[in-house]
Amino acid sequence: MGRHLNQVELNNIKITDDFIGRYVECVSKKIIPHQWKILNDCLEGAKPTYCIRNFKIAAREVKGKRKGVVFQDTDLYKWLESVAYCINGEENKDFEVMADEMIVLIGKAQEADGYLNTYYTINEPNRKWTNLIEGHELYTAGHLIEAAVAYYNATGKEELLNIAKKNADLICQVFGEQKSQIKGYPGHEEIELALIKLYRVTSEERYLKLARYFVAERGTTPNYFETEIKSRDGWAEFFPDEFSNYSLEYSQAHIPPKKMEKAEGHAVRMMYLCAAMVDLAEEDKDSELLVACNKIWDNTTNARMYITGGIGSSGYRERFTTDYDLPNNSGYAETCASIGIMMFGQRMTSATGDARYYDDVERALYNTVLAGINLEGDKYFYVNPLEVVPEFCTEHTSMNHVKARRQGWFNVACCPPNVARTLASLGQYIYAKDEEAFYIHQYISSEAKTKIGTADVEIDMKSELLKDGKITVSFKTTKRVKLKVRIPYYETGTRLCINNERAEIPRKDGYFEISLEKGKTLIEIDFGVKVKWVGANSFVRNNIGKAALMKGPMVYCLEEVDNGKNLSEIYVIENVKVSLEEMKDLPDIKVDTLNYQGVRLKNRAMTREQLYGDIKLEQIKVKLKAIPYCLWNNRGKGEMLVWQKILF
Amino acid sequence: MGRHLNQVELNNIKITDDFIGRYVECVSKKIIPHQWKILNDCLEGAKPTYCIRNFKIAAREVKGKRKGVVFQDTDLYKWLESVAYCINGEENKDFEVMADEMIVLIGKAQEADGYLNTYYTINEPNRKWTNLIEGHELYTAGHLIEAAVAYYNATGKEELLNIAKKNADLICQVFGEQKSQIKGYPGHEEIELALIKLYRVTSEERYLKLARYFVAERGTTPNYFETEIKSRDGWAEFFPDEFSNYSLEYSQAHIPPKKMEKAEGHAVRMMYLCAAMVDLAEEDKDSELLVACNKIWDNTTNARMYITGGIGSSGYRERFTTDYDLPNNSGYAETCASIGIMMFGQRMTSATGDARYYDDVERALYNTVLAGINLEGDKYFYVNPLEVVPEFCTEHTSMNHVKARRQGWFNVACCPPNVARTLASLGQYIYAKDEEAFYIHQYISSEAKTKIGTADVEIDMKSELLKDGKITVSFKTTKRVKLKVRIPYYETGTRLCINNERAEIPRKDGYFEISLEKGKTLIEIDFGVKVKWVGANSFVRNNIGKAALMKGPMVYCLEEVDNGKNLSEIYVIENVKVSLEEMKDLPDIKVDTLNYQGVRLKNRAMTREQLYGDIKLEQIKVKLKAIPYCLWNNRGKGEMLVWQKILF
Repeated sequence: MGRHLNQVELNNIKITDDFIGRYVECVSKKIIPHQWKILNDCLEGAKPTYCIRNFKIAAREVKGKRKGVVFQDTDLYKWLESVAYCINGEENKDFEVMADEMIVLIGKAQEADGYLNTYYTINEPNRKWTNLIEGHELYTAGHLIEAAVAYYNATGKEELLNIAKKNADLICQVFGEQKSQIKGYPGHEEIELALIKLYRVTSEERYLKLARYFVAERGTTPNYFETEIKSRDGWAEFFPDEFSNYSLEYSQAHIPPKKMEKAEGHAVRMMYLCAAMVDLAEEDKDSELLVACNKIWDNTTNARMYITGGIGSSGYRERFTTDYDLPNNSGYAETCASIGIMMFGQRMTSATGDARYYDDVERALYNTVLAGINLEGDKYFYVNPLEVVPEFCTEHTSMNHVKARRQGWFNVACCPPNVARTLASLGQYIYAKDEEAFYIHQYISSEAKTKIGTADVEIDMKSELLKDGKITVSFKTTKRVKLKVRIPYYETGTRLCINNERAEIPRKDGYFEISLEKGKTLIEIDFGVKVKWVGANSFVRNNIGKAALMKGPMVYCLEEVDNGKNLSEIYVIENVKVSLEEMKDLPDIKVDTLNYQGVRLKNRAMTREQLYGDIKLEQIKVKLKAIPYCLWNNRGKGEMLVWQKILF
Repeated sequence: MGRHLNQVELNNIKITDDFIGRYVECVSKKIIPHQWKILNDCLEGAKPTYCIRNFKIAAREVKGKRKGVVFQDTDLYKWLESVAYCINGEENKDFEVMADEMIVLIGKAQEADGYLNTYYTINEPNRKWTNLIEGHELYTAGHLIEAAVAYYNATGKEELLNIAKKNADLICQVFGEQKSQIKGYPGHEEIELALIKLYRVTSEERYLKLARYFVAERGTTPNYFETEIKSRDGWAEFFPDEFSNYSLEYSQAHIPPKKMEKAEGHAVRMMYLCAAMVDLAEEDKDSELLVACNKIWDNTTNARMYITGGIGSSGYRERFTTDYDLPNNSGYAETCASIGIMMFGQRMTSATGDARYYDDVERALYNTVLAGINLEGDKYFYVNPLEVVPEFCTEHTSMNHVKARRQGWFNVACCPPNVARTLASLGQYIYAKDEEAFYIHQYISSEAKTKIGTADVEIDMKSELLKDGKITVSFKTTKRVKLKVRIPYYETGTRLCINNERAEIPRKDGYFEISLEKGKTLIEIDFGVKVKWVGANSFVRNNIGKAALMKGPMVYCLEEVDNGKNLSEIYVIENVKVSLEEMKDLPDIKVDTLNYQGVRLKNRAMTREQLYGDIKLEQIKVKLKAIPYCLWNNRGKGEMLVWQKILF
């Protein structure tokens, strides 16, 4: 087992980054008020979500039928979690007032024994815990707990934490080994990692024990889900196609987690399970569990992940398929699943002390997660393909899930509040610490202060990662400490200067480990970030003979608005030279476009009307312009393409 | 309106073709006895279908619950239709005994008023005609009628015809304009074309009138299906996902057929509707309806059809999507839908006198329809992709529908008996006639005799279409008649000899029209069939920069067994020279393999373990061998590829 890293307190981190900062600011300025209107069904033109209304019905403040998906409550919990992260660090009285009002309502919706779930309380009070596969009660409780921990950390207020504890205490009673208890576990993992957070903030062992139980019991024989399906005679309550195509690995219940070697089933569920597995491995010093985590991580990132950090390549049911099956146009690559990669990877580095996992945390963040939201903060992608032809994203077909433009909201609206809470708590991914060292994991300009052991430290990082990879760190400490600086995979011979002197620092576990004396030190790091053409493993059939453009962590793409219609006609020359130019047509966005020569292929032997005919190919030279993938569809609807064909 | 062509009586046609003959013979020798066992639940190792058992329950011979899909009865009807075509032309006492036994059973299962449907009779007697969208009662009746007409034509026996008439008479009473009648139409078209067949054999106008009503009423306002959905409160009885994603165009009920311009929704339904539309246009001399048929045909074959004649490119719900959306690996291209193209195209030529429609009838037959069955006649493809990587056809994912090997049977087993009845009645696609002329539409070696007006004619055609396109026709007639010979699109300057003399015959409507005097004439036609590299319209994004190999009507493909794993690494040189070699590893199959030079692309900069990395491409010369697409997966499971990348 490696060492355990701790988070730097979120309210001690201030993000000042030109690029990412814009998104982070968007959360409090736009996303939270906007989502508030949606959850309250008062956004003009938006379909009602019934989310807060459901709580009012459960609280007997309003009469009516409970509506929305069975886990609709989680939208409010994730919103509360985002609010908590935004309150951090600065006064935000408006948010606190809004949140406290919601917390009172949630408290009223809770039953006397601690049960809290508007669907079952209102619609099916006699069917609680009968449908763990589909009913998502434990998943919903997990998000309540996460929100409660965040709000407590942000404000010190205990009301929501007490609600969550009361709910968790009930679940501790209901689930377990004893005869009177249910020997089950959630169909959608989430509560496991939430219980560990609750344990860490309350030090109550029973929450850790329950998380451990849920992970250990999962996939054992006799299989709880098989028994449950039999008890319902195969009848599907919420998701009819889940049963017609249900298989145990869909919810990671085919084998016990310790025996898992591959990323299987629903991608978000898999990632949330893995996050909890790593946490448990740390808490229990369970190296066997960590070995399983490492195998799953390697399988995910070496065989089942898009270059954008997207995972879950089946268009059907948001799930993993098989190694190297990564279709560019029809995959799922759910925004939430890439948030899951961030959660999993962060924990892997924490548990192992190895920085390598952060390469894909960063990949997921800068590409799929940021692509999940528009620059205005009011439209979202749930699905993140690498190749889009808008007219082929036809409703009622197998491409129904792929949208050619971001949507205002979704019937299953997991992604928007998940993006919000991730951006609002991004500090947790930038820095970390242990007893001796301060860690830099992400090069996002920011300021932070914390304690390393008994030393008070302060950092001011100015990052030009997206430009050229030059990072300037001003570090103050009251005692001698270590600074561990993650070395990203795209560096090209890093140059390091300490107090203006060139320094040769050895590399270990993916870090430069710098010893810093008391006082202020100036550290300049130049990762030499360059534009790079990247290829894919030849088992990824769709990408053979193709190249993708990257610069640092960012994947670039071609858009129709810059390059015309039918991007599939475009070919580029192997490793063609690329020139940079500032992107001008997006407000307040300072990134470079990548410009290079290519050709368009035309078949001169066929008329426009023919479907099949003779071949006489002609190459027409064209100038191409690529922009960061995460920024696509911010300038209208059109085609988009990441993987470009190479001309030999 | 063009002229109406008639079929040459099936029992006067004998197929003698080396290649196709093998499949046709297979129907009576293997497929019919094999399917008989399956329908009777007595094939060892096969899942029960309950098909005949359901009839026994409805006939009160056996007690139990009715099982299988709601339209399971159609399997028996299609089997009976195949049997009828096999009885034709030769004595086949065994088949007739089996069929007659079934007909007695069907008669017993029929209710007193003529109603006949084992699902509703046994399970839901009070819900008849309440679910036209999903319940498939009219579709099932259609297959009963088609079987009855075929069996009557083959044997002259009236028992099944009377059962079908009694059933149709009931439907005539139930459906129509009057107040006491249901103003509806089938969710799955089929009965329309069957009723026209029944009209043509019985001359009873009411059947034609009902077919006309079903077509005219479809898609009118107020929409019957919208009303029906409301009456069930959206509740899905048989196909849960049909409602969650239901749209009226899925069952061609969004607009009246006369206004249709594109092929929409479920591909088989669309084709069956079109077949009936053409028949009606002919019967009613309705040129407006024929114009709609022509538009739909052109849209289908110019924008929505695979090069193999496959249609319905959505992996979800077997349906059309949008123009040029033709994914090679994930599409549906159901075998039955290509049979539908044959039915539609045959009728279009009949109604217009233009041979051009037969180009795609032939394309569908030689590629997707023949691919639908293995050489042994006991395994079937339902879905016919143009590119297969077996490990990517993962169960429980969006590729669940694609199978890397033919299956013994299906839960929804429409395709196997549909292939059987099509092959057994293939004569109808080879020849046709009118008052003055005999037509050759397909170059399948065969003998036939019939009457043209008052002339007795006899033909013996020996075809080398698949070899070099040389056709030898020996034609005898007792009076002067015309012979109209279809000119296929792949001819390369046809040479014609009549009685050993070179003849220049003008072309008209896609035919050579040859006047033949009384007596015997020898006609030699050389279409100059050559191997050809074919390209696709550049809006078919997946096929840009790719070529497919064709020889005559046959599309060729690469298989792993001949060319190694990872066929996506293969590139071919534009219009590279191809040499022919006899295929040796399939028994009794005389076709040529196509052999040519290509390269495999390797990225030398990446290890096998890397998912993304540097690019340094190397081309390795390889010898390639292509075989006819319809023969793939007859030599074990492996990768298959039609569209090959071109190396520039």
